[in-house]
Amino acid sequence: MKALVYHGPGQKSLEDCPKPVIVDPGDAIVRVTHTTICGTDLHILKGDVPTCTPGRILGHEGVGVVEATGAAVSAFQPGDAVLISCISACGRCDYCRRGMYSHCTTGGWILGNTIDGTQAEYVRIPHADTSLHPIPSGADEEALVMLSDILPTGFECGVLNGKVEPGSTVAIVGAGPIGLAALLTAQFYSPARIVMIDLDANRLATARQFGATDIVDSSTDDPIAAVMALTDGRGVDTAIEAVGVPATFELCQDLVAPGGIIANIGVHGHKADLHLERLWSHNIAITTRLVDTVTTPMLLRTVIAGKLEPARLITHHFTLDDILDAYDVFGRAAETEALKVIITP
Amino acid sequence: MKALVYHGPGQKSLEDCPKPVIVDPGDAIVRVTHTTICGTDLHILKGDVPTCTPGRILGHEGVGVVEATGAAVSAFQPGDAVLISCISACGRCDYCRRGMYSHCTTGGWILGNTIDGTQAEYVRIPHADTSLHPIPSGADEEALVMLSDILPTGFECGVLNGKVEPGSTVAIVGAGPIGLAALLTAQFYSPARIVMIDLDANRLATARQFGATDIVDSSTDDPIAAVMALTDGRGVDTAIEAVGVPATFELCQDLVAPGGIIANIGVHGHKADLHLERLWSHNIAITTRLVDTVTTPMLLRTVIAGKLEPARLITHHFTLDDILDAYDVFGRAAETEALKVIITP
Amino acid sequence: MKALVYHGPGQKSLEDCPKPVIVDPGDAIVRVTHTTICGTDLHILKGDVPTCTPGRILGHEGVGVVEATGAAVSAFQPGDAVLISCISACGRCDYCRRGMYSHCTTGGWILGNTIDGTQAEYVRIPHADTSLHPIPSGADEEALVMLSDILPTGFECGVLNGKVEPGSTVAIVGAGPIGLAALLTAQFYSPARIVMIDLDANRLATARQFGATDIVDSSTDDPIAAVMALTDGRGVDTAIEAVGVPATFELCQDLVAPGGIIANIGVHGHKADLHLERLWSHNIAITTRLVDTVTTPMLLRTVIAGKLEPARLITHHFTLDDILDAYDVFGRAAETEALKVIITP
Amino acid sequence: MKALVYHGPGQKSLEDCPKPVIVDPGDAIVRVTHTTICGTDLHILKGDVPTCTPGRILGHEGVGVVEATGAAVSAFQPGDAVLISCISACGRCDYCRRGMYSHCTTGGWILGNTIDGTQAEYVRIPHADTSLHPIPSGADEEALVMLSDILPTGFECGVLNGKVEPGSTVAIVGAGPIGLAALLTAQFYSPARIVMIDLDANRLATARQFGATDIVDSSTDDPIAAVMALTDGRGVDTAIEAVGVPATFELCQDLVAPGGIIANIGVHGHKADLHLERLWSHNIAITTRLVDTVTTPMLLRTVIAGKLEPARLITHHFTLDDILDAYDVFGRAAETEALKVIITP
Repeated sequence: MKALVYHGPGQKSLEDCPKPVIVDPGDAIVRVTHTTICGTDLHILKGDVPTCTPGRILGHEGVGVVEATGAAVSAFQPGDAVLISCISACGRCDYCRRGMYSHCTTGGWILGNTIDGTQAEYVRIPHADTSLHPIPSGADEEALVMLSDILPTGFECGVLNGKVEPGSTVAIVGAGPIGLAALLTAQFYSPARIVMIDLDANRLATARQFGATDIVDSSTDDPIAAVMALTDGRGVDTAIEAVGVPATFELCQDLVAPGGIIANIGVHGHKADLHLERLWSHNIAITTRLVDTVTTPMLLRTVIAGKLEPARLITHHFTLDDILDAYDVFGRAAETEALKVIITP
Repeated sequence: MKALVYHGPGQKSLEDCPKPVIVDPGDAIVRVTHTTICGTDLHILKGDVPTCTPGRILGHEGVGVVEATGAAVSAFQPGDAVLISCISACGRCDYCRRGMYSHCTTGGWILGNTIDGTQAEYVRIPHADTSLHPIPSGADEEALVMLSDILPTGFECGVLNGKVEPGSTVAIVGAGPIGLAALLTAQFYSPARIVMIDLDANRLATARQFGATDIVDSSTDDPIAAVMALTDGRGVDTAIEAVGVPATFELCQDLVAPGGIIANIGVHGHKADLHLERLWSHNIAITTRLVDTVTTPMLLRTVIAGKLEPARLITHHFTLDDILDAYDVFGRAAETEALKVIITP
Repeated sequence: MKALVYHGPGQKSLEDCPKPVIVDPGDAIVRVTHTTICGTDLHILKGDVPTCTPGRILGHEGVGVVEATGAAVSAFQPGDAVLISCISACGRCDYCRRGMYSHCTTGGWILGNTIDGTQAEYVRIPHADTSLHPIPSGADEEALVMLSDILPTGFECGVLNGKVEPGSTVAIVGAGPIGLAALLTAQFYSPARIVMIDLDANRLATARQFGATDIVDSSTDDPIAAVMALTDGRGVDTAIEAVGVPATFELCQDLVAPGGIIANIGVHGHKADLHLERLWSHNIAITTRLVDTVTTPMLLRTVIAGKLEPARLITHHFTLDDILDAYDVFGRAAETEALKVIITP
Repeated sequence: MKALVYHGPGQKSLEDCPKPVIVDPGDAIVRVTHTTICGTDLHILKGDVPTCTPGRILGHEGVGVVEATGAAVSAFQPGDAVLISCISACGRCDYCRRGMYSHCTTGGWILGNTIDGTQAEYVRIPHADTSLHPIPSGADEEALVMLSDILPTGFECGVLNGKVEPGSTVAIVGAGPIGLAALLTAQFYSPARIVMIDLDANRLATARQFGATDIVDSSTDDPIAAVMALTDGRGVDTAIEAVGVPATFELCQDLVAPGGIIANIGVHGHKADLHLERLWSHNIAITTRLVDTVTTPMLLRTVIAGKLEPARLITHHFTLDDILDAYDVFGRAAETEALKVIITP
């Protein structure tokens, strides 16, 4: 089968690989019908993810059709249309029982990282019963690829951790795909304001279309002054970090009101300054989280009910044969205005 | 009346001052029967608290008897025995309605800071109805001085924010009075382990007597290795910072398990490093809080029920005439083994 | 001044009454600019509310302008436009500190019940600082009358107690004003389905316009069968009782899914059967609540942000001179299709 | 193997049965080392549980040693000492993912009900990975039988649902084994008062030994008057129903304070009156729950930490050969003063 293989920093190729087979009784083999590229895949290609070694098929998002199941799989059978979670969860370990699938002792984020992933014609999914979700008939399957990772990430790490609530104020720092995913799902809770902060005018325009009540171009405007002006000088109840660099995390510390929450989504490569000399008395919380995908069933219900339109995040389409072009377009997002790209084997 | 007056960094004196009078209709004048000294008073004397200006009577803790009340005071009358909260709360502003008395727009921590305090024969208490608590008859009044600040601080900032629960694991970094207050109140929730970490053998011995299941002398032992050994390599569910310097806050980042909470109590004068490059994916929360004293009624009930013995924190007694000696003993706690000192006018 | 006075069961009249004056230092006198009639006023007139004695001016909802304030009022001054809460709260007693203003030991629902109310030109508001809310400039004041009682009641007792959440399923039994208030505010949380159940085709049509995803006319259809068909045979996550008779409360017991909540809003005059022989093992919760109006500031923010349109509940307008007509129209709602009526002195 | 078999109402016998075998890949066969009898077993024998049909081996509690495992079992292997949960949970269905194991679509309470149970030398445990718990070495295995059902039931249905907290007041109606289990675990949260109400002087004496602060013999004293006297006329924050008849549930309605919770544990055979005409405005919650055993790992940690002593509930010991005597002693608890009996094959 064809698959996109990582060969060390800066190196990847589309090549023929053996079709995966059932290894453990809990496995399923899924024929991938749609997948996508994540910012994390770009991190891997920069060499930032040492757990991902050369020879690995990339990709941790996708939808498909079950091709085969191991003896212990009871919730799925061949022919079932399924959504693949980016997080594999055994459902049994202490972390899984607490809903912290991200820290599953035999799972977590392994797809396209420590085991072969979804940017291929077929993929082996361990712990299939608790790592796949049935796709309701009639659903827009392509759009559901957005529920593998980006929407639960924005929702769990940003919106739920940030405790967005009716009438509250929210700032989202970073209007890339993940910040926009937070923006879309924050609206589940009817906050009074969602202020989107970015340096990219195009992304800010998209944010406005996606429901931001206010946008701040931090290349021209002071985001602290702007947010204070919008919140009677108080700051926001929820500041969502969706970039992953120290400067934006530190900005959140200036935006958050007393009693508020800084909900980190960004993947950070460096430490940041925490201004405890100021914040120790501000009654704030800072949260971090690797997505657990524990809300995927809830998100599926909101999609079916028309409360969430995942397809809005999709800007480009490619075949698997053209996946190198897809990487190129996704990697030059500032120029191409790409958000999420769909790749169809 | 006699009072302890701050005269700028390093300078204080016991002197005669005018007795306070009712200024606002919500005021009460309380005759102080017992007060104490807080670590924050020492910070003021170092010049670390610019809001506190020379001429100020210090002190924000105490019990006493109501002497007079303003026209708007309805919950108290002269002769009532009362506990003075270190936080003044109007009960009306947005912050007060959310239980964030610490950020009351016309109150908060003002006693012994921006208005005259309790280290005196009399004190004026603004917003008396919502800043005093009736002392149940038969209570050990002297012991209740511990409920003005230190016990609610340990409980709210450390234990409640840290979500201590039955069977969970807790590390408390710092076995001074505030760490010990967290230790005493953490036991309300029956955690499996409370590991106390400090450099002072005497304080660790006290911690053991107060209920710590394990103690770690970080002057001789590696606290990270010790905590990991006690928690099957996982770290603790709750790490409570009770010192207020970058090193101890950063230690907490090494002690906390995935899914855990770092609850900061310490008063910090400097920023700290936050290791997001490691913690971004650990599903942790970090909380800060200036005590709200919103749990004082709950704590009073636990004292009356015999579930909490505040008197255990009291090591020394002085008269107001000897308050300079009290400051000396409290300031040299490592030598004197002082925890909290009671001062009686 | 003119006022609507209760004279015992079935008897009321519009008459001249003395203008209220400041009695306690926490009082404010408010000139009423708009008020309304509540279903509870009809209960009083049936003789169902023994605490309300003959001679009482009715009414517990309204907006107005502060005319005078007592010495202890600090948050308002004459000329301020204010929203009157149906619940008077001292902000100091144990219940108020817990946010249970409905059980304030010197307040609660007293307006138009145990003290004179708002269906008058002027009204005395005790505990003014914590029982009035400032009206933001530019707000539609008339519409804000809906925030005195009906919207916080639907929201607090139905939606918050019922823990409506994204993707969840909700049934509201009763499409009168209070059920519609629950319907409007349930949408803050983006549930997948809100099924509205009533006997009145007109009210169901209104419910559909107000955002119900499904309506069930229980005069012609079996509501249990209908709800099970809409929820894959599971029942709803949240069943909101908005009528107040045993039959509708018992219906909720048949509608709620395992793990769900029955949130009672209805004012009941009789006991109901609780089918513990079936429900003991269903992991459900049943909640009751007299509105606390603790969410009024939150609701005001949602109105200002355009997330909630209170004016949709208003169907008729009257002057105070015509208040007897207003009662007549409101009392014959099935014929007149009245929801809420606005009365303007 | 020997096993206790149900043969219809009033009929049971100890007889030879085939040893169970692996049926599904998720099964484990456990050699039972200790089991017990539950009040529910007596209900079955009265014919009250129609799902349990003649020929069924009874029993849903026990500890043992894994004898064999199916191909899909990964968490256990032969020789492992295990605690058997009374609830079988697949860990995959919607209910399991929400922690509502009691409603698992292929599990729940099936042991000794719809499949053969633990009052036997061997038992087949479906969904073994998520229905067994490893027993820590050095634990008192016999005592852990109390963690199969009774302690999680008292804790989850009574204490957790009842939101017991430091300084709060609790009434437990019924001092049988399940009420005592609630009493033991309520103390995890340091309530100020736990009032135990029963008709049996011996059980009340036991309750006092187990930590009740107050006892009320309702055969001689009015429990409502007694509880009001102990709570300043307010009622309790948490009323736990641990009997299962209408009268005791209705008593709870008279004991609960405004803002309080009635947490039902009792297994009810009849409906009860719910006095909504009084409670609609009292801001209370009523909860029901079939134990989920989701807290078993937490309870195990509290046992290991010495915070909970399950052995206190054990009054009698029998061999499996004498299980009919054990039923007799357990069935005449008022005379025999039996709480829980241990049966050892």
